[in-house]
Amino acid sequence: MLLNPADSVFREQLAGKCGEAIIRPYEDRYGKDLRGRLVGQEGIVAAPSSTEEVSIILRHCSLRKVPVIPFGGGTGLVGGHLPQALPKPVILSFERMNRIRRVHPGDNAIVVEAGCVLQSVHSAAEDVNRSFPLSLAARGSSQIGGNLATNAGGIHVVRFGSMRDLCLGIEAVFPDGQIWDGLSLLRKDNAGYDLKNLLIGSEGTLAAITAASLKLFHRLNDEATAFLAVSGLDAALELFNLFQERFGQQLSAFEILSGTGLRFLSTTFPEVRLPFADVPEWMVLADVGAVCGDEMQNRVADTATEAIGRGWVEDGVVAQSEAQRDEFWKVREMIPEANRRIGSVSSHDVSVPVSSIPEFVARADAAVAKIGTFQVNCFGHAGDGNLHYNVFPASGSSRADCLKFAPAIRAAIHKLVRELDGSIAAEHGIGRTKAAELVRFGDGAYLNAIASVKAALDPVGIMNPGTVLAGQVGFGGDEG
Amino acid sequence: MLLNPADSVFREQLAGKCGEAIIRPYEDRYGKDLRGRLVGQEGIVAAPSSTEEVSIILRHCSLRKVPVIPFGGGTGLVGGHLPQALPKPVILSFERMNRIRRVHPGDNAIVVEAGCVLQSVHSAAEDVNRSFPLSLAARGSSQIGGNLATNAGGIHVVRFGSMRDLCLGIEAVFPDGQIWDGLSLLRKDNAGYDLKNLLIGSEGTLAAITAASLKLFHRLNDEATAFLAVSGLDAALELFNLFQERFGQQLSAFEILSGTGLRFLSTTFPEVRLPFADVPEWMVLADVGAVCGDEMQNRVADTATEAIGRGWVEDGVVAQSEAQRDEFWKVREMIPEANRRIGSVSSHDVSVPVSSIPEFVARADAAVAKIGTFQVNCFGHAGDGNLHYNVFPASGSSRADCLKFAPAIRAAIHKLVRELDGSIAAEHGIGRTKAAELVRFGDGAYLNAIASVKAALDPVGIMNPGTVLAGQVGFGGDEG
Repeated sequence: MLLNPADSVFREQLAGKCGEAIIRPYEDRYGKDLRGRLVGQEGIVAAPSSTEEVSIILRHCSLRKVPVIPFGGGTGLVGGHLPQALPKPVILSFERMNRIRRVHPGDNAIVVEAGCVLQSVHSAAEDVNRSFPLSLAARGSSQIGGNLATNAGGIHVVRFGSMRDLCLGIEAVFPDGQIWDGLSLLRKDNAGYDLKNLLIGSEGTLAAITAASLKLFHRLNDEATAFLAVSGLDAALELFNLFQERFGQQLSAFEILSGTGLRFLSTTFPEVRLPFADVPEWMVLADVGAVCGDEMQNRVADTATEAIGRGWVEDGVVAQSEAQRDEFWKVREMIPEANRRIGSVSSHDVSVPVSSIPEFVARADAAVAKIGTFQVNCFGHAGDGNLHYNVFPASGSSRADCLKFAPAIRAAIHKLVRELDGSIAAEHGIGRTKAAELVRFGDGAYLNAIASVKAALDPVGIMNPGTVLAGQVGFGGDEG
Repeated sequence: MLLNPADSVFREQLAGKCGEAIIRPYEDRYGKDLRGRLVGQEGIVAAPSSTEEVSIILRHCSLRKVPVIPFGGGTGLVGGHLPQALPKPVILSFERMNRIRRVHPGDNAIVVEAGCVLQSVHSAAEDVNRSFPLSLAARGSSQIGGNLATNAGGIHVVRFGSMRDLCLGIEAVFPDGQIWDGLSLLRKDNAGYDLKNLLIGSEGTLAAITAASLKLFHRLNDEATAFLAVSGLDAALELFNLFQERFGQQLSAFEILSGTGLRFLSTTFPEVRLPFADVPEWMVLADVGAVCGDEMQNRVADTATEAIGRGWVEDGVVAQSEAQRDEFWKVREMIPEANRRIGSVSSHDVSVPVSSIPEFVARADAAVAKIGTFQVNCFGHAGDGNLHYNVFPASGSSRADCLKFAPAIRAAIHKLVRELDGSIAAEHGIGRTKAAELVRFGDGAYLNAIASVKAALDPVGIMNPGTVLAGQVGFGGDEG
């Protein structure tokens, strides 16, 4: 696919069609990732204020064969928003399309534009006594468009599902400028192929999502949180099963944390209060909630006591107040930031079948130890089988010294994930950092099929080239 | 697309490749629908015993350009399994691929072949103390492959979602014979486009689904059912909101029934016991359930009492035993069979935003009354906004006399659905009976996009031609 740069002539044409206001000055933030390791090339920033303007931009890019990089909050961890080795691209930023279009409490739905920050959707939902359950660390800056493009996950997937499950419909613009109004409020619709889910998670490579109708839920008015030291990962799974038996779909989160993670936290953020005086090797942080008073705190305490009796839990605390719940979750939420300050050698966002978690961790630890001496902080969404397995220098050793081991660590983890029928991209997506790995590990028939779909919907190949489907665009650095 | 018939030469070649056992004698059941109104043309029935045989069949059909009709339990209501006006097709029946491949209670998953009857998946789940929540009237004969092809719904969608939401992964064969092994047990996987959801609901027009990994759930050990006479449809929605406030995601079903439906039932099945001596105009049948003893029966009774106090409920019964729960649900489940015996003029499987249900019914009733004098039985999954709006001859009048009004009724209902941003195909699919309507009502950009996807994945056009994407294949009869 031969593409052309967004040169000054192109820029003037675009300004002529949409008005000068659509062109924004390029800033460093458009080319950065959260960890400060990946860098995207400079482009012309076009920030439309309406779906019609998105249509004009894309049609113009198609005609001129100029690459387009859809840009949301810039919080992606796999470089999907960071162009590489392309003719100068258009960075299609949704920062001006940030309206809440409509709130429908009677239908438990909200219609928002792609540039809405996740947190503002939370607030709009709360204003009508509802909740929007997607919850992730970047909630204050990530945008709904990016959440959809990457099928974002987070801590509540075990109960409410990923972004895909929370979306009723989308409005999207295809590369040729055609606008699809699919902003449905329907709970059931089997009229034709599921284009919505095809575009969700396609990381901006098939079309630009401009708005979405999202599910709202009645708020949980009785919630409880337990922070429990488990005797090991097998015990953590027994505990997960016990929580499912006792709470079923009222289990809102089931996270795992490692002692290493808590030690990182006390090193980098000594002001954060830890729930344990002696840091255990493995901990579970679990949330349950009911819409209607249901004695959740007592029931969680009973469940924890039962788990202690069975030897799965060795110590623990059930939060006695909202403030204490927040304190517990703060520990969990600060872990990624503590990791960033320590500086990982190699980070992994993988999933395995839930029952394979203990085997995965044991074998990954052994494989990493064979490569060298490191610290591992493994944590994440155990209830979804989604682990962030992050490898750090041993204390006394520096990140720079260890980076030479990163490719071997990555190869070992990916090989293991494959052997356990897992995924190398559980919730962050493929982006640019894993595009080559997708080709290497993906099922052949699947890869052929998605390549055909890409060619069918984006025949000129302007949409986010190098992301998902581009093994040839190599890219170093951390993988998310 | 010029296709060739599956002639005797083709038949011999297929038998030569796969063995004579793969060819089954043609029987009437392959060309029938449940209501006995649609008829499919005869074909060569090929019943593979393995995924590899499906691959051989499809590859051969691609090479010879022979149409393929994937065939499951034959319970579809929109003619998706009934070929029309095609060169003699291959009927690809999954009756021999009916194995439960693996059960994974630890991962709350089960892997089954496409030909598994839904009921046998229920049983296999119960054997390991789990449940598979898809529940529909045809559970004793519909197959998992057909459930997936049509994204089947049923009574538990309000809590557990449609077939799409219950599926973790699929194995499928593309028209050129390539096999995709996507039988994942993962709860989170963002590695590449969502091909799974594209194939689910595509009604056999893109690929043949040969197996699936499905979600299992911990069983509900405390369930309760209420059969409530509501003062009208607005009151029914208030009641729905109240149930959501009190039970949240523990609300398993929220169905609406009409007095006409109950009268049909007592006419056609006088032995079925009705819960009301005087049949009310509108009733709600609601199910709630918890995994763990939660006083559901008392809480439902309290909720019903509260609703009576607010004037939304006028009369009602909370089931006092499992036997009585079954009795209540039997009333609901027999309604479609009673309808069949009465014989509808025109049936509709539509959805609207939940809040628009009262407006839809009022305006539909008015529109139908303008066309003539009829009886209407409107019932269905109110919690999903999914109504079966079925029109019958007035008593004293015959179906034959009324059929001339069917096109006008259909046009009026579809026009109204469109005005309310609803769907003309909520849970049964488009099939052949609504393919022309999809073209008429569908969004232009959407239709172009799905046509490109069809051309990309099935370039020869052998997969179930005339279904979903074929306005030109006209087809009379009832629409489901």
